[in-house]
Amino acid sequence: MTETLMARRARLMGPNVPTFYDDPVHIVRGEGVWLWDAEGRRYLDCYNNVPHVGHCHPRVVEAIATQSARLNTHTRYLHGLVLDYIERLTATLSHDLSQMILTCTGSEANDIALRMAQAVTGKTGVIATDNTYHGNTTATAQLSTRRPPIGGYPAHVRRVPAPDSLHPVGGSREGQADAFAAHVAGAIADLQAAGVGFSALMICPIFANEGLPTLAPGFLDPAAKVVRDAGGLLLCDEVQPGFGRCGSHFWGHDWIGIAPDVVTVGKSMGNGYPVAGVIARPDVMAAFRGAFGYFNTFGGNPVSCAAAMAVLDVLEDEALQANAKASGAHALDRLRALDHPLIAEARGRGLFFGLELIHGDGSPATLRAAQLVETMRSRGVLLNRIGRHMNTVKMRPPMPFSRAHADLALDGLTAAFSELPDTRPDNG
Amino acid sequence: MTETLMARRARLMGPNVPTFYDDPVHIVRGEGVWLWDAEGRRYLDCYNNVPHVGHCHPRVVEAIATQSARLNTHTRYLHGLVLDYIERLTATLSHDLSQMILTCTGSEANDIALRMAQAVTGKTGVIATDNTYHGNTTATAQLSTRRPPIGGYPAHVRRVPAPDSLHPVGGSREGQADAFAAHVAGAIADLQAAGVGFSALMICPIFANEGLPTLAPGFLDPAAKVVRDAGGLLLCDEVQPGFGRCGSHFWGHDWIGIAPDVVTVGKSMGNGYPVAGVIARPDVMAAFRGAFGYFNTFGGNPVSCAAAMAVLDVLEDEALQANAKASGAHALDRLRALDHPLIAEARGRGLFFGLELIHGDGSPATLRAAQLVETMRSRGVLLNRIGRHMNTVKMRPPMPFSRAHADLALDGLTAAFSELPDTRPDNG
Repeated sequence: MTETLMARRARLMGPNVPTFYDDPVHIVRGEGVWLWDAEGRRYLDCYNNVPHVGHCHPRVVEAIATQSARLNTHTRYLHGLVLDYIERLTATLSHDLSQMILTCTGSEANDIALRMAQAVTGKTGVIATDNTYHGNTTATAQLSTRRPPIGGYPAHVRRVPAPDSLHPVGGSREGQADAFAAHVAGAIADLQAAGVGFSALMICPIFANEGLPTLAPGFLDPAAKVVRDAGGLLLCDEVQPGFGRCGSHFWGHDWIGIAPDVVTVGKSMGNGYPVAGVIARPDVMAAFRGAFGYFNTFGGNPVSCAAAMAVLDVLEDEALQANAKASGAHALDRLRALDHPLIAEARGRGLFFGLELIHGDGSPATLRAAQLVETMRSRGVLLNRIGRHMNTVKMRPPMPFSRAHADLALDGLTAAFSELPDTRPDNG
Repeated sequence: MTETLMARRARLMGPNVPTFYDDPVHIVRGEGVWLWDAEGRRYLDCYNNVPHVGHCHPRVVEAIATQSARLNTHTRYLHGLVLDYIERLTATLSHDLSQMILTCTGSEANDIALRMAQAVTGKTGVIATDNTYHGNTTATAQLSTRRPPIGGYPAHVRRVPAPDSLHPVGGSREGQADAFAAHVAGAIADLQAAGVGFSALMICPIFANEGLPTLAPGFLDPAAKVVRDAGGLLLCDEVQPGFGRCGSHFWGHDWIGIAPDVVTVGKSMGNGYPVAGVIARPDVMAAFRGAFGYFNTFGGNPVSCAAAMAVLDVLEDEALQANAKASGAHALDRLRALDHPLIAEARGRGLFFGLELIHGDGSPATLRAAQLVETMRSRGVLLNRIGRHMNTVKMRPPMPFSRAHADLALDGLTAAFSELPDTRPDNG
């Protein structure tokens, strides 16, 4: 069955279409933190952040079904739902972040954010970390291209070393914030010398794709000052940390303590319904709307707003941010209690965890991390990897993930570590 | 009520957010070809192509509701629906267009199509018409920018004069195909001389945004030959003509008779659910997948495939392409029978119509077209304008639009013309 599906995929979708696991799972049903495959096997979902309030949450499903039956048009007609949603979401934000454009994907949102910075500054130069991902459009993919782009590397992009837990920028954890800021300053100077000028630093405030390094609030203060002093904007990609994921705060930038000029959201916003958005200060929005025409056919349609509103309702009524904090703390305690020579660091923020594996010689245990992920899949627990060397096990479950679910996952991890074939350095 | 909504929009969405009509309509419900506003007033929808099989079609709503309650994940797990859909859709296409990437929006699809051409040719130069629209991402918006872009006009884009009904490229309708091709050849030479090289011509095969000019099958043959001879790709934007809209053919490129290398779809594909896609030959797909990494979180999720599949079911079971042909022919007959000195040409293709208005001196009657649209809105019929001078009334109703609906719209138009204040040249 799986093999037939893989062959059909290759025939209909082409080569190199990403899948998870050596033996990809064929999922047919979801509910809460659980997924079922075609043979009826149940998996604990410790990976997916898109079904933020749980797979197929009945209130979100009901909101989508009801509004789909009533009306689904675009924002060139008037409709109350899109306004109600923006009003409610921006009420969770500070820093005068009070206006919003709704899109369908986080990629579209970040693509707009980059143009907002251009509109405000009149410049195009943009800085991101060298191990990030901000989207799949041409413009956003330029921030994370790993293959030489056709036509050459874009002149307006600079990448700075990503913060790291085990190998801090500048060599020490204490000095990492200043060292990171110094790299940003150098990139700004380089963009200015090249004549393109500096428009923005785009950043995920918890550095999720960079491997969720251990950082303290205030880490971005020196870099933010450098950006401000150069007249640039701070674009905060909240696609992963936003909507309470961090437990302690509703937004990642509030945890790390910076004041973004633009915030982007996506993935979790509609619990799987394709809706995303860009939130900005009125002056930034006005600059964008003055410099660029923009309309998104599906963006802000009533069904997407009903779905996104239902997500906020469930987050509130089921106290899921508080759950992320409590369950997250419990899971992190248990992750830290894991005892295995490969484990270099267990780290977490709310319901987002990284477990970095290295060998005795300090080299990344990439292959071991991969084996662990495969073992967990065969044990019915879905998780994956992140980080520059893909040697960090990544757990980022739906928000209703409870202490009991965490115990299940950690019991599985404990067993999986004991099943690892050996722990000798393999440079894998 | 409306004023309050407009004020809230400005506060929450910022300035310059596009709306239709001097007095924007506040739509709260839709069914088939009908929309209702907050005061219960009914409108005949002669504009919207997104609700392709009719607003809130119960079979599409049911498909969305059922699948949303069952599972909504991404394509890194295996799922049959995305494969079933690609198999069924590509069966309607020739030219070995047999592989597909699903996205959320037509903009994302066109953004990929541009990169496919880069991957195949190793070049970046792209040509589009000078009065088109292919999307809202940074890369696609560069094809239709009307304001000077920040950082300057991109070096890899050339625009050629759009085909036109009343003012044909080259001066005559008979010579327009060759004249258009000559402009494409000139743009290719220019791109090659500039060192960026030529990758593709991106085109809507019915030139919908250009004003739906009267053209005959074969029109694009000379331009297609020029593109082929230069080693470039033909990227066909089927977001508007596709899915039977043209009546005579399921795809616009089959009507005009060209063999695209890449076809993009959007808007109508999911009847309002945000789903879109790129279809290509296996060699083109392989080149793209070899040169670029690409994953779309929401693209090809099971709910989007269920919605898109339901659209194909309804198109078939309700014979909507045949309806587009028959109702479209009837509506076009009646449009051509309209008698008013402002009318320069009534043209149509299936359920897509343009009614171009000019003054006695040949100048575009832009203001009169705008007045007509406003009058129709006040008479309960929603339509709009297109074309370089926005002097062409545009009708593009949902596909279940019947002869009776056409008669209602045309009776309205007849009355609206009689209500136009005067017909003297106003250069409006």
